Amino acid sequence: MTDQPNFQLGQDFPGTTGLLPAIAQDHQSGRVLMMAWMDETAWKETIETQRAVYFSRSRGKLWRKGETSGHQQIVKEARIDCDADTILLLVEQTGAACHEGYESCFFRAIDNNFETRIADPRLVDPESVYGKKS
Amino acid sequence: MTDQPNFQLGQDFPGTTGLLPAIAQDHQSGRVLMMAWMDETAWKETIETQRAVYFSRSRGKLWRKGETSGHQQIVKEARIDCDADTILLLVEQTGAACHEGYESCFFRAIDNNFETRIADPRLVDPESVYGKKS
Repeated sequence: MTDQPNFQLGQDFPGTTGLLPAIAQDHQSGRVLMMAWMDETAWKETIETQRAVYFSRSRGKLWRKGETSGHQQIVKEARIDCDADTILLLVEQTGAACHEGYESCFFRAIDNNFETRIADPRLVDPESVYGKKS
Repeated sequence: MTDQPNFQLGQDFPGTTGLLPAIAQDHQSGRVLMMAWMDETAWKETIETQRAVYFSRSRGKLWRKGETSGHQQIVKEARIDCDADTILLLVEQTGAACHEGYESCFFRAIDNNFETRIADPRLVDPESVYGKKS
């Protein structure tokens, strides 16, 4: 069923920041890998190329996921939520999604005493991917 | 492994908006159900009660998920991301997560021509949950 044929998410990017949250989920395991932000340019390039492109708030520019690490995300399906202000990408993730070397950025669990623990194994050494920090 | 014993997400709520994105995922199916926002009060109540509590930006107040619809979310596990600025809840969802009656708010898929389609079945009639809009 096709609905809203003229619908474009880009029309809904909020004027204040111009950024929408985008969730990446592994299309096979269902693991939520990360949450990042997209501006309209990142969104359009993501859909057109079927490769995840975000907007890095810290660097203030487009961030083609994997351009440094090689850990790119091939988009298998893109979804938007009911309010058209959040993006969900079902992706094929190469390597580790997290810059700390974990499969998912959500590798820390919090118990009901607000204590954290690392709940996942580390897949790769970040230094082998991004180089040693000086 | 316990890390950062003094870590509190609350310390990291950004000063500008005081809100962090929170993703709810079905703990069994892995389906990403919704993304909403938490302020520090919502976060603390969520962890302490193990029921998802968000902050509604449109209503400007705490939103105890299910307080109107009965469609509450029991938190099975809470996770935070590497930057400690995004929350992931693994939940047991009662009924439909989406106020439009779908299991997930992400019921619309977008193809690479930017056309949308409704990709999921509707579980419940929203009018039966929230009452008929006048």
